[in-house]
Amino acid sequence: MSKKIGVLGGGQLGRMLALAGYPLGLHFHFFDPSVDAPVSELAPHIARDYIDMDGIHEFQQRVDVVTYEFENVPVQIVQSIAEHTPVFPPAIALETAQDRVKEKTFFHHLSIPTPSFTTVDSLVDLYSACEQVGLPGILKTRRMGYDGKGQVQIDSTEDISLAWQKLGSTVDRPAHLIYERFVPFDAELSILAVRSTIGEIAYYPLIQNTHLDGILRTSLAPAFNDDSALQEMARDYAHRILEEMQYVGVLAIEFFKLGNTLLANEMAPRVHNSGHWTIEGSETSQFENHLRAILGLPLGSTAMRGHVAMFNLIGATPPRADVLGVPNAHLHLYAKEARKGRKLGHITIRTDSEAELPDLMANIQSLLNT
Amino acid sequence: MSKKIGVLGGGQLGRMLALAGYPLGLHFHFFDPSVDAPVSELAPHIARDYIDMDGIHEFQQRVDVVTYEFENVPVQIVQSIAEHTPVFPPAIALETAQDRVKEKTFFHHLSIPTPSFTTVDSLVDLYSACEQVGLPGILKTRRMGYDGKGQVQIDSTEDISLAWQKLGSTVDRPAHLIYERFVPFDAELSILAVRSTIGEIAYYPLIQNTHLDGILRTSLAPAFNDDSALQEMARDYAHRILEEMQYVGVLAIEFFKLGNTLLANEMAPRVHNSGHWTIEGSETSQFENHLRAILGLPLGSTAMRGHVAMFNLIGATPPRADVLGVPNAHLHLYAKEARKGRKLGHITIRTDSEAELPDLMANIQSLLNT
Repeated sequence: MSKKIGVLGGGQLGRMLALAGYPLGLHFHFFDPSVDAPVSELAPHIARDYIDMDGIHEFQQRVDVVTYEFENVPVQIVQSIAEHTPVFPPAIALETAQDRVKEKTFFHHLSIPTPSFTTVDSLVDLYSACEQVGLPGILKTRRMGYDGKGQVQIDSTEDISLAWQKLGSTVDRPAHLIYERFVPFDAELSILAVRSTIGEIAYYPLIQNTHLDGILRTSLAPAFNDDSALQEMARDYAHRILEEMQYVGVLAIEFFKLGNTLLANEMAPRVHNSGHWTIEGSETSQFENHLRAILGLPLGSTAMRGHVAMFNLIGATPPRADVLGVPNAHLHLYAKEARKGRKLGHITIRTDSEAELPDLMANIQSLLNT
Repeated sequence: MSKKIGVLGGGQLGRMLALAGYPLGLHFHFFDPSVDAPVSELAPHIARDYIDMDGIHEFQQRVDVVTYEFENVPVQIVQSIAEHTPVFPPAIALETAQDRVKEKTFFHHLSIPTPSFTTVDSLVDLYSACEQVGLPGILKTRRMGYDGKGQVQIDSTEDISLAWQKLGSTVDRPAHLIYERFVPFDAELSILAVRSTIGEIAYYPLIQNTHLDGILRTSLAPAFNDDSALQEMARDYAHRILEEMQYVGVLAIEFFKLGNTLLANEMAPRVHNSGHWTIEGSETSQFENHLRAILGLPLGSTAMRGHVAMFNLIGATPPRADVLGVPNAHLHLYAKEARKGRKLGHITIRTDSEAELPDLMANIQSLLNT
């Protein structure tokens, strides 16, 4: 009955996976280069570089199944582990999500609409991209971008050469960029879906997100009270991806809502920041369902428990007592040192009464503004 | 902001304290004689005997505040720690709860009714106890009893000498026993109350418990739908204890319900098995509120989230997949080796629909009977 889960990456997502998995009687081993990774106080942890094959081998020997919580793990490492130990989600999902062009091409292959985009490998490419795809738009690195890093907005042709300087010419290898048309969205939404090794699938309700400087700030669930058509559309898109990839685990897909359409922006083959509210707001959290999925256990109910809002704590955390003094506030700190722009924790507000939510949210917002 | 919590005892209660405390950004150090204590995989843990003062000293140096999850920690140790480090709940609560006579005398001092009782230190005492207090009754050791251990029922005068042999004459020191009148109760109830270092108090709703062979099997919350008078009575009794002892932390009190009265059976100065359902069934779990209380943080809401039933897993655990296949079942395993009569885990069923609860409970019950 005892199962040992190996997790590549030992950040807050790993921490919350372990906290969800211990009650199920699961055991954890983490692999993360940082000695003081957030998981280090609560689980055994190998602090070696991802490309240290001796370390990876040692890690692999200790576990029954491997998953990852860090999206920039080298795909080759995951493929190599998969030769001897089951790894979920499958390497193909990681490989696709790591490259914005592969990702959007994959969406198109499944007839999932996206913002217009084209690849950019030179300044000349960028000029023609802005003309073909249109302005305004966003120039992004194809790989290794997260939390708004590796992105520059281009509003007019005058911005082009500076944007290229910032992202294209600062690397000493050929630039691999993508130019995407800016979408004047009504809302940013995400859906979390989960598929198990035995093919069982479940979906969480659509989530409404707000970003600032490219970093997720708040998530609200459910996104809308009357969104059955959008909900259905998001589930359908998620279903196509899950089945095409024979995906296993939690998958997050971020959308731009534009009227009655959803444009896929990106996917994350892992538990996701926009699903942290599921700890209090769902019958079964995304973390527990990810573990159930990779072990082939029955998935838990994704039904909502009330109405929730999640606030990320970026760069600083308000005093613990102030947060806990807000009714129905649930605090989650990640044991990370404060640093500008860093995700240090989150706060979830959960209430059965939707009418109460705005006031409670305002309480939290006022703590974050001080 | 970083706080280090020292916990004496490293069993399942300690495990659930750590799982509740990590999200608050708290750090844990445990002290438990057993090398493979349930907490050992998820927190630093000193495996020394409770009376090893070097070990206790080392433990104490590492932490900001001390609490305990094991009721039979020697009181002298707690008193000695308290000379230099805050310890909650206060030693007086531990001392009182460790001796059934002191405990019931304390209840009487606060005008909280109990079953009739008297002390028994000899066979002669026992004969006169049965006559004065009446039959049937239960002979119990004053100290170190738990989960039905150290108890013998006496139905008639013929049982007296065997009962004495079992509990009185098997120890090579003078026997210290208590004889209590058996109460033909309608129900066994408990209440969890919590008081913080700054005097804030909160109560969870009354819980209905069933025991078998002296071991808690199931808890149901709320106990009744229309129990405001009993609820008020239980809160009042709890309030008297909290204030009298200037108590800090979670306190559990077990009652026998007899018509419209509550007779206090015992108290536990710690988080309690009959409150495990609060993890899913309350806005804030007993574990989190215990930690908030000892740190002087605002207490969290104790409002119920739906209707819950908790089943202990005693001696054996059903297959994980079977449990997780029951809708709204939440599994909690303690990473303990299976042994007859041992608490290995629990299952909580939570549902918004009270009408659904009996069927879900029957599903779990059928898993426990196989």
